[in-house]
Amino acid sequence: MTDPQQLSDFLASEFPQSRCTLLSLGPRSATLKHAVTEADLRPGGTVSGPTLMALADVALYAAILGEIGIVPLAVTTSFSINFMRKPRADRDLIGECQLMKVGRSLAVGEVSLYSEGESEPVAHAVGTYAIPPQR
Amino acid sequence: MTDPQQLSDFLASEFPQSRCTLLSLGPRSATLKHAVTEADLRPGGTVSGPTLMALADVALYAAILGEIGIVPLAVTTSFSINFMRKPRADRDLIGECQLMKVGRSLAVGEVSLYSEGESEPVAHAVGTYAIPPQR
Amino acid sequence: MTDPQQLSDFLASEFPQSRCTLLSLGPRSATLKHAVTEADLRPGGTVSGPTLMALADVALYAAILGEIGIVPLAVTTSFSINFMRKPRADRDLIGECQLMKVGRSLAVGEVSLYSEGESEPVAHAVGTYAIPPQR
Amino acid sequence: MTDPQQLSDFLASEFPQSRCTLLSLGPRSATLKHAVTEADLRPGGTVSGPTLMALADVALYAAILGEIGIVPLAVTTSFSINFMRKPRADRDLIGECQLMKVGRSLAVGEVSLYSEGESEPVAHAVGTYAIPPQR
Repeated sequence: MTDPQQLSDFLASEFPQSRCTLLSLGPRSATLKHAVTEADLRPGGTVSGPTLMALADVALYAAILGEIGIVPLAVTTSFSINFMRKPRADRDLIGECQLMKVGRSLAVGEVSLYSEGESEPVAHAVGTYAIPPQR
Repeated sequence: MTDPQQLSDFLASEFPQSRCTLLSLGPRSATLKHAVTEADLRPGGTVSGPTLMALADVALYAAILGEIGIVPLAVTTSFSINFMRKPRADRDLIGECQLMKVGRSLAVGEVSLYSEGESEPVAHAVGTYAIPPQR
Repeated sequence: MTDPQQLSDFLASEFPQSRCTLLSLGPRSATLKHAVTEADLRPGGTVSGPTLMALADVALYAAILGEIGIVPLAVTTSFSINFMRKPRADRDLIGECQLMKVGRSLAVGEVSLYSEGESEPVAHAVGTYAIPPQR
Repeated sequence: MTDPQQLSDFLASEFPQSRCTLLSLGPRSATLKHAVTEADLRPGGTVSGPTLMALADVALYAAILGEIGIVPLAVTTSFSINFMRKPRADRDLIGECQLMKVGRSLAVGEVSLYSEGESEPVAHAVGTYAIPPQR
């Protein structure tokens, strides 16, 4: 399995603007945190949809690289998300990804997104990644 | 129908960090452009998935506000996207939204995303927005 | 909470052609079985996609009625599914639904679908239901 | 391009229980009709969600086979649908599929579903199909 520190370093170099950090890496799973800032907020005091989507996408990517090794050319092929509760403006976001399939050419996973410290998810995403053949 | 200039001003004030501009507003439709910069790029010379998602989300929002007036509390409830072709790193992105339903409480629309000047879409999104009851 | 036997009877009367039976009902959850027959099979010896979709849809409906009581007018508003493994032609299908939100007007849940006796899901669905206001 | 009569015959033999017929086949597109019967109806006088999903799935399959030839092993990998209006119980359903991508290994298309004779769609689906490599 991929070394968590190596994956953290890779994510930091590949996404220099990102405010996502890897909290933990497990079997077919990864947990990330996104540090919420003013730039993520929408009027009404909530976190924007695209901020949640970006965290879910990185969480899927991290969990997949955790399984298959650091293969920078894996790409998202489909992504869907349901928004369920208003995220808190004053909390960071946590994304917990669990992969449901890691095949030769396709990986599928789900991500539950939380305002840190809350028990009910603010959103739930499912994404599929294409894995490059030559690895 | 909503005045395009008013909507442009509203989007600029509500999303000050956004690099999306409204190109046109029509019946149940809106076209937006996102100015691609270094921050949007991924290794391999392509535009990141979350950049495409953010443009699609704003295009849906713009088309809905074009129909129902400037109601800042409309929120995304679900969003799905399929990535079909690699976007060009050296082109801006165009998002063309067409609404399929504008009901009292829910609006549904689709967005085709293009690298500017190309004829085949790089991605296609469908989103639903909840419309606040008291308007 | 809804009585499981009442819910079984209701599902049998509302879906007389269905071969789905309720196995169990829990807090925000329901498990159903679909008896696979010739009519569900596709060439190549697998179960058809629409058969899986129908089971997932009924599992969501059952879990929601388990929470809110037997409200026949709840309707699906969106549904998405990822197919991950080939279902076995010689096994029944199991659908395990877990609700992620049961709000006043909207419920959201996920369903994992299995060939009976297998540990890895053949498909995973997420659906949203609109709940009628006057209950 | 695939011959429409051959495709009709193939669909009839592969889906003997189906009540879908191919109305027309065009470039990257197909239109199908589903004959609505009692078995498709839900209490409240509407057509069931799974009936709509099954028509959309077959419409995607038909449009893809129209492009790539009759390759029986193409399989759905993901499918999403939004339900927008109540279908009429006394009308057949029409599914109009337009493909957005037909690649070597993946095809992506959208389907608008109508109650026959109505101008506004009752539902809209997007699906992806994996195309077998050896053809």
